[in-house]
Parts: sequence; structure tokens; C-alpha cells
Amino acid sequence: MTASTSRDLTVTEVRLTPVLVADPPLLNTQGVHQPYTPRLIVEVVTADGITGLGETYGDTKYLELARPLADRLVGHRVDDLNRLFAEADQVAVDAARVSGQVDVGGLRGVQTADKLRLSVLSALEVACLDALGKSLGLPVHALLGGKVRDTVEYSAYLFYKWAEHPEGVTAEKDDWGAAVDPAGVVEQARRFKERYGFTSFKLKGGVFPPEEEIAAVRALAAAFPGHPLRLDPNGAWSVETSLKVAKELGDVLEYLEDPALGTPAMAEVAAGTHVPLATNMCVTTFAEIKEAFTQDAVQVVLSDHHYWGGLRNTQHLAAICRTFGVGVSMHSNTHLGISLAAMTHVASTVPNLHHACDSHYPWQSEDVLTERTAFEDGAVRVPDAPGLGVELDRDRLAFLHRRWLDDDGALRDRDDAAAMRIADPDWVQPTVPRW
Amino acid sequence: MTASTSRDLTVTEVRLTPVLVADPPLLNTQGVHQPYTPRLIVEVVTADGITGLGETYGDTKYLELARPLADRLVGHRVDDLNRLFAEADQVAVDAARVSGQVDVGGLRGVQTADKLRLSVLSALEVACLDALGKSLGLPVHALLGGKVRDTVEYSAYLFYKWAEHPEGVTAEKDDWGAAVDPAGVVEQARRFKERYGFTSFKLKGGVFPPEEEIAAVRALAAAFPGHPLRLDPNGAWSVETSLKVAKELGDVLEYLEDPALGTPAMAEVAAGTHVPLATNMCVTTFAEIKEAFTQDAVQVVLSDHHYWGGLRNTQHLAAICRTFGVGVSMHSNTHLGISLAAMTHVASTVPNLHHACDSHYPWQSEDVLTERTAFEDGAVRVPDAPGLGVELDRDRLAFLHRRWLDDDGALRDRDDAAAMRIADPDWVQPTVPRW
Repeated sequence: MTASTSRDLTVTEVRLTPVLVADPPLLNTQGVHQPYTPRLIVEVVTADGITGLGETYGDTKYLELARPLADRLVGHRVDDLNRLFAEADQVAVDAARVSGQVDVGGLRGVQTADKLRLSVLSALEVACLDALGKSLGLPVHALLGGKVRDTVEYSAYLFYKWAEHPEGVTAEKDDWGAAVDPAGVVEQARRFKERYGFTSFKLKGGVFPPEEEIAAVRALAAAFPGHPLRLDPNGAWSVETSLKVAKELGDVLEYLEDPALGTPAMAEVAAGTHVPLATNMCVTTFAEIKEAFTQDAVQVVLSDHHYWGGLRNTQHLAAICRTFGVGVSMHSNTHLGISLAAMTHVASTVPNLHHACDSHYPWQSEDVLTERTAFEDGAVRVPDAPGLGVELDRDRLAFLHRRWLDDDGALRDRDDAAAMRIADPDWVQPTVPRW
Repeated sequence: MTASTSRDLTVTEVRLTPVLVADPPLLNTQGVHQPYTPRLIVEVVTADGITGLGETYGDTKYLELARPLADRLVGHRVDDLNRLFAEADQVAVDAARVSGQVDVGGLRGVQTADKLRLSVLSALEVACLDALGKSLGLPVHALLGGKVRDTVEYSAYLFYKWAEHPEGVTAEKDDWGAAVDPAGVVEQARRFKERYGFTSFKLKGGVFPPEEEIAAVRALAAAFPGHPLRLDPNGAWSVETSLKVAKELGDVLEYLEDPALGTPAMAEVAAGTHVPLATNMCVTTFAEIKEAFTQDAVQVVLSDHHYWGGLRNTQHLAAICRTFGVGVSMHSNTHLGISLAAMTHVASTVPNLHHACDSHYPWQSEDVLTERTAFEDGAVRVPDAPGLGVELDRDRLAFLHRRWLDDDGALRDRDDAAAMRIADPDWVQPTVPRW
């Protein structure tokens, strides 16, 4: 027997730690980010005492599933990943949590039991891969067939934002200032470029009437000629409005992201413009692919490895996109360094990644790692250390978990409309299309 | 530094050994198997002295590519697999070798440069995975995310055959006897069941007029009630004939395999019958998927990991099939135990494998392994030993390579029509549809 085979890769414990992390007052079509956002940190421990890290959405509906899913992982080996999916299918999901419809408020696409399970499973899969990599002395990308690039390019994720959260709200300060008009957006972009070297820019739209957002993109185009630009109103527009924006910005947009909600509307927009359409709202599960791809409704799928069930499923998605001539890149919601590392590893293995990935990470001043991940020239270097190549800072984890424990429940479920009502009591969660 | 990271996974040498292996006089629509079939055995050696095994088609056109591709692998690590594909794209393919059309004579579907490269690359990938698994102390299935089943079911691959190769031809004897009518086919099936426990039966058709093959399948259905049955004429029929056979055998067929040639014809057949259509001829590359799936031309894709570029691509194919509601199973051409092990490992990881896989292995009396792989109850136990879990018999390899060296070239390229002309000098390679 060699040293290799004497390893015990069995999972003996899974630790689940919900945290609340500071979030700036970023605006979107549904409202504004709350001052703290819930995330779930997962630690998978093997019989050999190796710990693997994972991270996912931390709202209550995910936490409810995390414990039963984690319990099913105990006793499995960290390299026994394909079986996890069938195991997960056995975990009951509260029907009240899933509508089967696109969850407009959550901005995370269709809500199904399967997707909810996968969103939790993904954190377990990443933690298993981290533990496996550490155990074998291999980086996660090597467990995924190896990187095809040494750095992964990210785009600057521009937001309309207030200078600070509403008065009276407990919140961390940020130094980004306000951005509520074209000049503010351009200034934000300049700082993104200066600080991190980003050369692609994505503006989260759907906040102001389309003309104002067209003006902001035009201002970006003037300030950064030749740089890839994207606009994402999260499905806030009608087909007619979408086509109008596509026509007006057709010469400067790399792609338009989710201008209208749902595959039929996206297909109608796609049929009427040469601007490629990207999505992380109408194609967020394998079940949605066939309809969207056969209707040519989308030209780029933005994978969120949390939704899709992990890094290996993201590779499958990329293979499907390649096969159907559809582009692929990566979506981001508020996340920490563990997920950034996971995204970077998997992105490094996807040959057909032809667009810079999205990441909220620069907006997160807090993290659970001992060392923040750096962007250089708009890119993250792919770690070659064993596992994900990141290390947990237990003090920081405890601090952020304490914040979650101390919360009265108001912030444990992200609700951008509720946050907006603090500033504007008359705010009603918008129905789309807004324009 | 741990023991793990001190491993050196760099490829230092790739050994390529063409062999000729005994093949019985099995009949198909193009002719008859030659007495010996070329295969290529690949050995990938790492800096640590670990050797990984792979196997693929051995005809000259594959051998021509094997050396340049192998040379590009040297210096790479055996876990650095995703980069191999881009590397392979750099290897020039002799235009005379590829028609871009379906190669009817070869029965291996469309002939493109990319597919030719992938057919060789697959053997390198399998050998790398074998070496990596041996190095890490993990079975290949664990490198693919882990098995979801402990045994992989295979079907009995029934052939019309002669009792022996034509007089005067140097050949090994087999003890299967002739099978040229329904009674002979049933008798062959009985022996397959008795020897290996198979419960699914596939008849290679396109040899005799459809009425005779319908009678053979009917005889099988009567002899083995309730057992899954398949008929595969390799595209020998017109749409009209295909529909007629589907109608007559609709109550007993698990699926009909490649009744007509090409996606448009298959789509026409599929539209006219409820019998599922399987293929390993019209969908043999990722490039062919979109047309076939959007036209609902096929209901089951039979993956040949050699064509598709290896085990990880086979997993991608399975994910695509699952996404589009298309079934998946595995195709086989004449192969040895290395490829059987590779098929078994990858098949064990595919959740949506709902049909017994094909394998010619029982027809091969010769192998390059120290121990033949056993079928029990029609299934192969998934090896849990490091790597593929098989061991090369160097004496056998040398013996079969010597046969290849001694051949004057006549058998180095499989040509079933040429073999048929020895028995029937007037035989012309049939054009399809034959009926």
C-alpha cells in the first residue's frame, strides 16, 4: 500500500456558518442593497483532519436546506461528487419556498426546488474539491482537468449608488461616493480602472428611465473608447424598450444583459437586434436551456456556479454552450473570497470563456479570508496552491457570524425593496417591465 | 512540502504500439470483419516512472496523428488535460484522410480532421487519467467525480457470422459457429447469456434483406420474452424501409439504431414512429448535436469515447443529452480490455445511463492485459484499484505488435469490403440505402 491510498477522504463533519457582510447602498431595479447581506460559509472536514471551504447564498431558505444536505454528505468521500446530486434529490424542499416562476425580487431567475438544492449543493461541492485538492496536493483547477489560462479576467461591476445607506441605518461606510448620473458612473469606472485595472465595464441598470442609462453608457463609451461595455436592467424593460435601447447603443455594447424578462421576450428582442443578449435570469438551470437555445433567445449565458450546482456543472454548461454556439461567462451576486476563488478556478478551465467575468467582490470590504484576493490588470491570478488556495480567518468568520446572530432577522433574508422603503416609505416592489 | 506535492506528474515519454488482434468473421452491411483488426496501445510515462494505458483505433490514419500528438504531450502534466485539446488543434491532418462526409465504409460516422484528432487524443487522455489515478492512489472514476453505480451493464452484441474466415486466409479459430438465420442468431444469444449473463441483445443488421432480420428479432423476442432488443443496420435502409421495420418490430424493440443514414433521414424516420432511434453514426461529434437535437432526429446517443475525445468529453456529452431529454449509452467497435476499462469507468459516473452499453469485447479472444475482464450477470464490476485497474502483459503486447510488424499492410487498415471480396470477388462496397 502506498502513502496515497492510506489517505482517508471520508467526510466526518460539515460546519455551516451564516454570516452578514457589509454591502454598500447599490441600486437596482428592485430597490437597494441592504447594509448587510447574508452568506453561508461551509467547512467540510475529512477523517484526516483536512478542511475544505465553500460559500453560497445565506438567506433562510438556503440555510434550511444546508443542514439536511450537509448531514447526507457526512460519511461520503470528498471525491464522491456525482452521487451527491441523487442524494440531494432526497432532501425535501418546503413548497412555500418555491414558486416555479421567475423570482423577480430575488433577481436570481426561476425558483424551483431543484435549483434551491443545487445552490446549497454547490457550496458543498466546492468545499469537497478544496479538501480533495489539499489532500492530494493539487489545485482545484487540476481536479477540473487543468487551467487553460493563468489569469481570469473580470469586468468592473458599476452600480448606481448612494453615498451612504439611509440615515439611522447601521452600516459600514464606503469610500466610493454617490453615482446617480452619467458623470458619477464614469467617475466610478475610473476608480475601478485605477484600483484594479479593469478594462470591461458593466453597468447595473433598470434603476433610472432608459434614456438616462443610455446616456450613462454613452458617457462610458466616450471616456473609455474601445472598451467592452454592458448594461443589465434585470429584465426591467418591455420588448419594445429593449429594442430601442439595443438600437441606440448597438455600436458600443459588448452585450445587453437580460433587457426583458423570460425566454419568449428575450427571443423577441434577440430576433430584432444584432446586439448579443446575455442572461443570468432566463437560463439559470439546465431545464431552461432547451427552450432558450432552440429559440436563439440568448447569445451568452452568465453562469453562477451557485445556481448551477457547482464547478463541474459549470463545465458541463460551458460544453453545452460551446456545442450550441452560445457564449459563456460568469454572473456574480454579492460574494466573498471563497466564491471568487471557486469562480477563478473553474473559469480558468473553460476554453470558450470569451467575456470577462462579473464579480461584486470589489464592493465587499469584508471577507472571511486571511488575505484578500487581488485584481491585477483586471484579472485574478489562478491559484496553483493545493485546493482553492485560500485560507479562512476564524476571527473574521466569528465576527461576521456574531453579526448574523445579533440580527433580529430583518437582514437574514435579502430584500432590496424593503431596504428601499427605509428611504422611501412609498416604495412598492416594482413589477416588470417597468419601462 | 507534503509527500503529495513532491510528486512529479510530468509526462516524460509516450510509447505507441500498434497491434493486430484476432477478429471473428462478423458480418455487417459493408462486408465482413477481417481476421485481424488494428488497434493502437498507448503508454504514457511520468517523471515518477508511473505508466498509464490508453487504447484507440489503429488504422494508418490514426497512427499518422498519434506520434505528433504524443510528442506534444511530453512535458505536460498528466492532470493538465483541458490544454490538450488546443494543443491537438495545432496538429495538421492530411486532407486526403478526411472527407467531411459520413464515412460509410468505416461505419464510424462523419470524417473530419477534428474527429480524427479526438480519436487519438482520447487514448492519450485515458492514459493520462490512468497514470494520474495510479499516482494519486485513486481509481479513474474518482477522477471523474466518482461512480454512481458499482457495476456497468453491457448488452450481448449479436452478429450474423460465418463459422470461419474464408479458406486460405490466415486466421484464429473461434468456437461460436455460424449464425446466418434466425435460429443461428437465437443460438448465439443463448450462448452469450449462458457465458456472460447478458440480458439485453443487440443484433448487427443491414446484412440480409429486412424481412430476414425482422424474423431474427422476432425469434429473439420469442426466445427471450421481455428482454430489451435492438437492431442496427448501420444506415442501410431507406426512410420507407426504416418505417416499415419500426412498425413491424415496434412492440419488441428497445430502440432501432441508425436505420437510415444522416440526420435528415433519421429525423424523418423519428417523426414517423414511436420506436426510439439510437445513433452512433449521425451524432458522433459535438458539431452534429445541434441539428440532430433540434430536429428530434435521435432519442439515444451511443457515445464512443474514442470519437468524442475521451472520458471527460463523454461526460459532457451525457450532460448535453440529459439537458435535451435525449438518452445516452455507449457504442463499441472492436476493442481490447484497456478501452473496456475506460468505458466502464466513465459509464459508472454517468447518472443518465439508462441502456446497457455495447461491447465487442466478448468477440476478442486476444487481449494485451494480464487478466481478461469478466462479465458477470451481463455487467462489469467497476474497478476501485488506482487508475483504470488493469495491467499490461508485455509479452502479449509484443506478440500482437509482431503480428502488426509482419503484416504486409493488407490488414493495417480495416476494410470490411476487401475482406468480403476474398469470399466473393464480385463484392462491391455497397452504397446505402441498400434496401
